[in-house]
Amino acid sequence: MFTTEVLHELIKVLGKENVLSEKEDLVTYSYDATAAVPSVEPDVVVTPTSTEHVVEIVKIANRYKIPIYPRGSGTNLSGGAIPIKKGIVLTTQKMNKILELDADNLTAMVQPGVIIQDLNNEAVKHGLIYPPDPGTVSTATMGGSVSECSGGLRGLKYGVTKHYIMGMELVLANGDVIKWGGKTVKNVSGYDLTALFTGAEGTLGIITKLLVKLIPAPEARKSLLAVFDDLDKAGNAISDIIRNKVIPATLEIMDKVTIGTVENFTHAGLPTDAEAVLLIEVDGYKEVVEREAPVVERVCRENGAVDIKVAKTDQERDLIWFARRNALPSLAQVKPALVLEDATVPRSKIPNVIKEIRRIAEKYNLMIGTYGHAGDGNLHPTIVIDPRDQDEVHRMEQAVDEIFKAAISLEGTLSGEHGIGIGKVKYLPLEFGEAGVNTIRRIKEALDPNYLLNPGKMVTKEE
Amino acid sequence: MFTTEVLHELIKVLGKENVLSEKEDLVTYSYDATAAVPSVEPDVVVTPTSTEHVVEIVKIANRYKIPIYPRGSGTNLSGGAIPIKKGIVLTTQKMNKILELDADNLTAMVQPGVIIQDLNNEAVKHGLIYPPDPGTVSTATMGGSVSECSGGLRGLKYGVTKHYIMGMELVLANGDVIKWGGKTVKNVSGYDLTALFTGAEGTLGIITKLLVKLIPAPEARKSLLAVFDDLDKAGNAISDIIRNKVIPATLEIMDKVTIGTVENFTHAGLPTDAEAVLLIEVDGYKEVVEREAPVVERVCRENGAVDIKVAKTDQERDLIWFARRNALPSLAQVKPALVLEDATVPRSKIPNVIKEIRRIAEKYNLMIGTYGHAGDGNLHPTIVIDPRDQDEVHRMEQAVDEIFKAAISLEGTLSGEHGIGIGKVKYLPLEFGEAGVNTIRRIKEALDPNYLLNPGKMVTKEE
Repeated sequence: MFTTEVLHELIKVLGKENVLSEKEDLVTYSYDATAAVPSVEPDVVVTPTSTEHVVEIVKIANRYKIPIYPRGSGTNLSGGAIPIKKGIVLTTQKMNKILELDADNLTAMVQPGVIIQDLNNEAVKHGLIYPPDPGTVSTATMGGSVSECSGGLRGLKYGVTKHYIMGMELVLANGDVIKWGGKTVKNVSGYDLTALFTGAEGTLGIITKLLVKLIPAPEARKSLLAVFDDLDKAGNAISDIIRNKVIPATLEIMDKVTIGTVENFTHAGLPTDAEAVLLIEVDGYKEVVEREAPVVERVCRENGAVDIKVAKTDQERDLIWFARRNALPSLAQVKPALVLEDATVPRSKIPNVIKEIRRIAEKYNLMIGTYGHAGDGNLHPTIVIDPRDQDEVHRMEQAVDEIFKAAISLEGTLSGEHGIGIGKVKYLPLEFGEAGVNTIRRIKEALDPNYLLNPGKMVTKEE
Repeated sequence: MFTTEVLHELIKVLGKENVLSEKEDLVTYSYDATAAVPSVEPDVVVTPTSTEHVVEIVKIANRYKIPIYPRGSGTNLSGGAIPIKKGIVLTTQKMNKILELDADNLTAMVQPGVIIQDLNNEAVKHGLIYPPDPGTVSTATMGGSVSECSGGLRGLKYGVTKHYIMGMELVLANGDVIKWGGKTVKNVSGYDLTALFTGAEGTLGIITKLLVKLIPAPEARKSLLAVFDDLDKAGNAISDIIRNKVIPATLEIMDKVTIGTVENFTHAGLPTDAEAVLLIEVDGYKEVVEREAPVVERVCRENGAVDIKVAKTDQERDLIWFARRNALPSLAQVKPALVLEDATVPRSKIPNVIKEIRRIAEKYNLMIGTYGHAGDGNLHPTIVIDPRDQDEVHRMEQAVDEIFKAAISLEGTLSGEHGIGIGKVKYLPLEFGEAGVNTIRRIKEALDPNYLLNPGKMVTKEE
């Protein structure tokens, strides 16, 4: 239990400047970017500056059986940073150094508090990039995005966060410090705990260092916007692009509801009578782009696109992505709150799932804008609601339930990129069955038997 | 303990045709492709044909506390398939069906006994490939190569086995069947157990189905052979190719000892006075190859290559790779046995580790040919010995010890692609420390508390 004794112990090992316990601090760390989850004030917030600090915090937490919530910038969308059982919020904001950028081995070693964009700004000096690009790339931390295994717009061609994590240093729940992985492309020594800890939502250990893979920056890119008057045609175009052996860097979709809302908000010139638009970018060598862009254009036309805009200038390109980036902000204008899901299906099932979402929207009389990463099958059905309207909230909850069931029945998954966090814990048996959930629980309890690390997220104690 | 009662139970659930217990069967399954590990006859060999069969076998093994050794074709190089504590060898040879090839989603679902090459033969009909290519691609099974997380020649550009495993079905040590992952590019639901089980050497569960990622086949390729009279120059060329933003599909090295031995054996026209040769292949679109091959050639020349051969025909290409493929067979001719290691270092440390290996060879008066995947830092120091020469065997063991220590001290790893298996268990603390080994053990015991699955491999019970 948290007492002033604990507070004094924390101050003793961390220094006054790294222990925050004023009311305004506790309120600040009581929520994250997730809607529709409770906000809870922690007992204390700590800002360690070193691995040694983290070890000391874990030791104190163990002694007093107080939960610890590792936290980056709190941009996650699954309630992953909420201190739901009170205790210690451990923010990595002061562990924000890029420790090494090794251009020969295409790696960087960073502390967990480094902002993703800051790493990219450093990498670009060497002609390199760190490809994972969640929407929050300019505010999210490396530690947070690795713990959530963030996705983003480039997943189809470049993969997601897990594909770029080569190693890490962690502090375990028992205070042990372990190092895993390394700079070698190949490594089969021990179990692949680097992969296990990536996307573990801070429930298995606290990341104190990260070794990531960088790749050469693509030298050219070309963007297209293709307009469809029929959802199936858009869906066929998506699969057909891949069938033609073109893997675009980005392959996004926006449905009619989203198009209308974005156009209303941005006046970007989107066709509001369209059923769907695809927003596509190919990149790589100049020669690759010159070869792939015409293939994408032809395939869209052959699949019945009623209009295709190929960006000829940077300005035209920016306009296409301006529209896409405004999907969420535009929908956010419609009603006071929104619930942003990330049910994900195999790419070929995109039309099916969009139709299911429409059916569910009608059934529950809700406005749902659907858009997202069509190339990955990772959609973001976004339900706009007024939280004061209890009936609407209730219908939203039922709709979310049905959306998850629809995704699973289409060979999909509960979460493509936002994580399980608080809200989806109850759905895990749907995807994994009881045996699967028990397996998750056994792993959790092997490394954190007292559920001290980020409790209430991913998996909960058997009751 | 194994008794005739167990034999009868196995026959009852599997049928006589799936239970082998004749002396010649037991001898056949007493060893694998690894030198310098003991061979042990199992009590029985079973050939299940379904997941249900595997569940029944696990239940019987649990009842009688008998170890199970999952086995593919036994081509591994770490003793991973040796039934070291006797018990049941479970071979997947009769679970060898490609269940689905989904060209729209770029996935294939296979049973674990499918030979890697057979999957590739099917994929190529759709213009696709399954990139992992261990040397044993034409005999190794998918289940075995996933359990060992096999590498191969294309790791630098295409990654290794783990980068292509999207999901799996497993039978756990308690008989539970779980399914993980799926066809979606993005998936952050639950812990990433697909990744944990990949490379777990069959110690955490028995794979019964595998969902793998396929990619479009590259349409063109070009191979080069560059000759160096100095190891550092070759090493600099390796790093410099990457620095020039070219990621070759294959980037191999052979040292002087290997060159001489291969030439002696094959008469392929290799320069026996060279200190090192690099064998390089770029692939992709025709335009990519035309752009990258000249960069590689220029960089090698700038780094002091004394000769460069660019393959102009398929025949010339085949000759280059014929030489490389004969590295191991050639060295195998020199003495009755060889010990093939896979100590791996960051790419930039290749010259350092080759020099270390030379120093160690001189110190212990051994012949060590070093070659391997320079682009990944994954070398294969190959020590040729006469097992009857006890003194030589002893010197070999000391040399192996020093090679591992050298790799670790150069920020490398114990194993790039062969796995820990039997022989390297004792070296794990060197890489992970006691805390790390304990972490591995806690994961093992969470899923297999009685060490029934492939005991003696990867991690052993605390004594």
